[in-house]
Amino acid sequence: AIVSTLTHAAHPNLVSSIDDVNKMRAAINESGYFSNAYIALKAKVDKQIKQPITVPVPKDGGGGYTHERHKKNYQLMYNAGMIYQLSQDKQYAQFVRDMLLEYAKLYPSLGLHPKRKVKSQNPGKLFWQSLNEAVWLVYTIQAYDLIHDSLNANEIKEIEQNLLKPVAIFLSEGQPSTFNKVHNHGTWATAGVGMAGFVMNEPEWVEKALYDLDKSGKGGFLKQLEQLFSPQGYYNEGPYYQRYALMPFVTFAKAIENNQPERKIFEYRDGIVLKAITTTIELSYNGLFFPINDAIKSKGIDTIELVNGVTVAYGLTRDSGLLDIANQQKQIILTGDGLKVAKALDAGLATPYQYQSVAFGDGADGNEGALVVMRQNIKSDKVQQALLFKPAAQGLGHGHFDKLTWQFYDRGNEIVSDYGAARFLNVEAKFGGRYLPENNSYAKQTIAHNTVVVDERSHFDADVKVGNKNHPELLFFTTNDHGSITSAKIDTAYQGVTLKRTLALVNLPELEKPLAFDIFLVKSDKAHQIDLPLHYKGQLIDTSFKRDAFTKTLKPLGAKNGYQHLWLTAQSKPNAGLAQITWLNNNGSFYTQSSIVDNDTDVLFTRLGANDPNFNLRNESAFIYRKKGVKKHTFVSVLEPHGQYNPAKEFTLSAQSELSSINYSQSNGVEFVEISLNNGSRYLFAITNDLSGKAKFSYNNVDYQIDDRFKIIQLKNQQ
Amino acid sequence: AIVSTLTHAAHPNLVSSIDDVNKMRAAINESGYFSNAYIALKAKVDKQIKQPITVPVPKDGGGGYTHERHKKNYQLMYNAGMIYQLSQDKQYAQFVRDMLLEYAKLYPSLGLHPKRKVKSQNPGKLFWQSLNEAVWLVYTIQAYDLIHDSLNANEIKEIEQNLLKPVAIFLSEGQPSTFNKVHNHGTWATAGVGMAGFVMNEPEWVEKALYDLDKSGKGGFLKQLEQLFSPQGYYNEGPYYQRYALMPFVTFAKAIENNQPERKIFEYRDGIVLKAITTTIELSYNGLFFPINDAIKSKGIDTIELVNGVTVAYGLTRDSGLLDIANQQKQIILTGDGLKVAKALDAGLATPYQYQSVAFGDGADGNEGALVVMRQNIKSDKVQQALLFKPAAQGLGHGHFDKLTWQFYDRGNEIVSDYGAARFLNVEAKFGGRYLPENNSYAKQTIAHNTVVVDERSHFDADVKVGNKNHPELLFFTTNDHGSITSAKIDTAYQGVTLKRTLALVNLPELEKPLAFDIFLVKSDKAHQIDLPLHYKGQLIDTSFKRDAFTKTLKPLGAKNGYQHLWLTAQSKPNAGLAQITWLNNNGSFYTQSSIVDNDTDVLFTRLGANDPNFNLRNESAFIYRKKGVKKHTFVSVLEPHGQYNPAKEFTLSAQSELSSINYSQSNGVEFVEISLNNGSRYLFAITNDLSGKAKFSYNNVDYQIDDRFKIIQLKNQQ
Ligand SMILES: [Zn+2]
Ligand SMILES: [Zn+2]
Repeated sequence: AIVSTLTHAAHPNLVSSIDDVNKMRAAINESGYFSNAYIALKAKVDKQIKQPITVPVPKDGGGGYTHERHKKNYQLMYNAGMIYQLSQDKQYAQFVRDMLLEYAKLYPSLGLHPKRKVKSQNPGKLFWQSLNEAVWLVYTIQAYDLIHDSLNANEIKEIEQNLLKPVAIFLSEGQPSTFNKVHNHGTWATAGVGMAGFVMNEPEWVEKALYDLDKSGKGGFLKQLEQLFSPQGYYNEGPYYQRYALMPFVTFAKAIENNQPERKIFEYRDGIVLKAITTTIELSYNGLFFPINDAIKSKGIDTIELVNGVTVAYGLTRDSGLLDIANQQKQIILTGDGLKVAKALDAGLATPYQYQSVAFGDGADGNEGALVVMRQNIKSDKVQQALLFKPAAQGLGHGHFDKLTWQFYDRGNEIVSDYGAARFLNVEAKFGGRYLPENNSYAKQTIAHNTVVVDERSHFDADVKVGNKNHPELLFFTTNDHGSITSAKIDTAYQGVTLKRTLALVNLPELEKPLAFDIFLVKSDKAHQIDLPLHYKGQLIDTSFKRDAFTKTLKPLGAKNGYQHLWLTAQSKPNAGLAQITWLNNNGSFYTQSSIVDNDTDVLFTRLGANDPNFNLRNESAFIYRKKGVKKHTFVSVLEPHGQYNPAKEFTLSAQSELSSINYSQSNGVEFVEISLNNGSRYLFAITNDLSGKAKFSYNNVDYQIDDRFKIIQLKNQQ
Repeated sequence: AIVSTLTHAAHPNLVSSIDDVNKMRAAINESGYFSNAYIALKAKVDKQIKQPITVPVPKDGGGGYTHERHKKNYQLMYNAGMIYQLSQDKQYAQFVRDMLLEYAKLYPSLGLHPKRKVKSQNPGKLFWQSLNEAVWLVYTIQAYDLIHDSLNANEIKEIEQNLLKPVAIFLSEGQPSTFNKVHNHGTWATAGVGMAGFVMNEPEWVEKALYDLDKSGKGGFLKQLEQLFSPQGYYNEGPYYQRYALMPFVTFAKAIENNQPERKIFEYRDGIVLKAITTTIELSYNGLFFPINDAIKSKGIDTIELVNGVTVAYGLTRDSGLLDIANQQKQIILTGDGLKVAKALDAGLATPYQYQSVAFGDGADGNEGALVVMRQNIKSDKVQQALLFKPAAQGLGHGHFDKLTWQFYDRGNEIVSDYGAARFLNVEAKFGGRYLPENNSYAKQTIAHNTVVVDERSHFDADVKVGNKNHPELLFFTTNDHGSITSAKIDTAYQGVTLKRTLALVNLPELEKPLAFDIFLVKSDKAHQIDLPLHYKGQLIDTSFKRDAFTKTLKPLGAKNGYQHLWLTAQSKPNAGLAQITWLNNNGSFYTQSSIVDNDTDVLFTRLGANDPNFNLRNESAFIYRKKGVKKHTFVSVLEPHGQYNPAKEFTLSAQSELSSINYSQSNGVEFVEISLNNGSRYLFAITNDLSGKAKFSYNNVDYQIDDRFKIIQLKNQQ
């Protein structure tokens, strides 16, 4: 055994190298972000290692005592290992050693976990599912690496033979279908086993982790890097899951870089690891992730997974904008890259992170639709606007039936919103803290989103399998000084129905804030009922048309597909022309959605909460434009942020829309939205659908030219 | 005219004296808070005085163009006058002079305002009501004082004879009923006229302003100081109105102090002006005023009126806690006292403001009930808890029918809430920005509050006149290291019904956060239906009893007195014992209200929004404990903040109440609430109703003694 350990590589050498450790040891004696983080973590670990070591026999499922205890243990071993390296105080190493020896005593005695799912492909031994066991290994192998030099040969033998090797073999050879699977759960396994290979000098394990158990390259970490992110670094379950998936990718990649720099892992697939990290940042607004699919809305850029990601990304790029994110994350991690971040923050090198307008292609090749983020700066305000458009693929089991939906953000707040997931995480009284029944019956359904619902049925009839097989097509996306525009279509959400939506976020010279244009075309051979809902955040202020409110009795809007959860609170049939709905958001701004209506459009106002016996749903508001019995309809609207409500300072500015009319027309593949303002100004917003993005056209007998997909033209006033 | 001006006092000498001005002139050349404020105001004034002077013929009512223009003018004249004094740049004085001369040209031509109310006692000339005219004078006389030394004799004559004297006479001799009235509108008139007396050397005007037109002392400023505040400095319309009322009191008092220090105005009535200022601060939580009566909830301590108040108070007391408030107000005013605040902030002298637990007596003699604030520090948190109890008088026309209501605050948020006023200030589309019809039909009604409603009728049958004639009686209030307790009763809210409520905010040794105890006794000769609502802020998490939710149809709970606005969303009849209702607030804490119920108590769950055709109401939630056909009932409950919900960090702590039982009993004037915790601990909360606050009693055969109204006793566990 001694001989074998001597041939091992130097320790530690996974995420942090010996060189990193030497620099960190120096830094903890200087004041600054790094030593602050060190002192805080050391204090926490000092408290924890005073408690007796507890390695219970596995018994409970997720959330239960033994489950949570083993999760705490691996985190604690990792932290104590790092404090040992930095403080060089043996008591921390001894604590980790003793706990590892306890595990080494326990592990050989374990069969499959008693709470494993019946017929499960991926049971664990310490945990009910092997995913947790893989995470355990990722942390524990790092802890072991950190204290390795403090161990004697017997201890090494005991820990490696009875614990670490068995775990690594259990997670690889023992579960080939999980290990080889191109899925983010598999990444934890490949990362754990591969890192174990580096530490215990098992190069074969590294090869298998990288290239599949049979080393064919059909599975394994590199395949995962190829398949699980789009070329732009988008992970198709959405940012809430992307930040979670990120962790093993970033950790293992960093370990590969330290052990086998010749692999140039960070250059792999045009720098996909880095793109995956920055894309996660880009998919946030005001610190929180865009809540698409089953996302809990309070999750944001300060999650530990993204702290790790940003730290590694800064180590790679020294991009000072990443320091802005690090500042917001308020957490320094104790690694070599963490030290680089800390020193840069000490030196005040942070510059504002520059969020971009981007179409993130979806799917491994980036051609299964896209997730589009359009941002715009507001002249008078620090905070950007953001418009999220989702012509993305289904995104597996956590995906929502929300093709072509959009969300809008302004002055730090949601304005046009998505419900996110219906879940109270870990709150036992709320369905055990799991996804609530209303997640399926409402949150996933199409009506819960800001996109077209045909015949009160959800996209793909809410069948995930069908959803996963079909995706929208991104028609175009462009961004320039005047704004951004994007368009996409799908003809598989409903049989025989084509949905095509164009959204733009555009500055108008005389308006303080950009306008959001929305043109939604629905086309079918057969007549249908078409609903276009908009879920707004705030208090309804006014409508330009009469509403008939249900003041004495409320009834649900429908019977199924999410409609059963909406109380119908009012309905209208506005006169043909402009229909305007104004609401006031908590941010103190007013928002008016102005739509073109014919004489036969219903507007329905709803409030969430029907058929919700356990009060599980938030009681949010929406309005729905409804057309009945039509084969084709184009919804055209403009969302306009305006004014300010400041009751504290007792002033209210511009509580009313500036728009007085909207007209929509098209000619030769060019679409026109003409708007008039109350002051008499008239603007033409022209869009070409030509592949080239270029077009010539004439409007009111004047010739114009589009060079980059769209054009804003101030029209002369008609005398 | 020259001779006359020579006999005038030195200028300026109202809120700021010549000595103040000299110090301020020095300070604007040093960097710091004061010069920053000066630079900012100067930049604003520079922009404004480039615009042409506009003194329009009065035409519009409140909110209209001429109304708003004249309001802007007085503010601008005051600001420009101050910039003149500090910069000594004549252009500012000339601007004020020119505007005053415009007014002097206009004013003699004016009759009563065209938009005055028919048969109004208090029409204005520049404004539709004389209140605005008095405010105009308060600002304008100061502006005139500030530029006086720059004027020649003709200008002085013109401005004084044609403008300032006529305005002062119109507001005094011209409207004796308003001027003499002991009402805060009268204070603006007495302040304006009195200050004009100082500036234009009319000592008679000062005498009349102080002692009534007939100098009898029956009216005037001193009587207003005596009558409008309670001895503790509470203004009986509540803090929202108190901060507004404060302005002329503070301004005129400061001018009196500068001109006639021998009056010792700040010592008058045991320092009532200072008390009125600090009480306004005390009636806030997390920067916002407690929203009792017709209050707009976003109004708080940063309002300009309280900035002025805190500034003057600091000048008087040099209390460093006031600097904490000044820091939060983020506004330095350019006066002598403003300079003192600025310099102290520059020197870092601010210390945390120490909020107190206080019973603020209501009424001129402090014996018309009280407004009680109880505060408690939380062991682990910076933010205090606050419990507001309102056994206060009606508070005139803006008062709500909410006798003995309470509100509860924790971790910065409202937990048990009051609707405040139903109003969108200045939002034209919402009933012209005025109080909404729902302010009367809901917000003022008893059911909108957290207090007992008998037979679905509001207190005093919602008759303000009856309300103003009756008030609750404060029975006791005490505060000590263990907590605070208060009790009050009223037997005039409903004929033949006595309401008595005791509320306490108390620390239990083993609980992290204090508990709020609530004992509400209702007693009558006749049988009644008794409702006790609690308006909670947050999402319902769980109840210890089964609820029958209305999932398919919602109906209003009642037909009138506010009940018509509540949708009944669920109802229950819990088994006898402990009924617990848990909700989750936005602040991430859970709150459980645990109540003792018999077998015949209904619990109704409601959501606001019925009979609200214009969507004017916020859709807030409540539950109501209802007893039918009883002559006497005691509601006993404990509100318990607990745990933490942190989905961002993916943990949830203590989502369930620690309480397992509550028992209530009484013996010989001592009331007992015994509570048991889940861990088996048992506590006795004993309260004596004896006048002395002392009592001896025995409980479970053990003898105890209360020395200060209440006692918390840990009971031995029964074996
Ligand atoms: Zn969704
Ligand atoms: Zn109220």
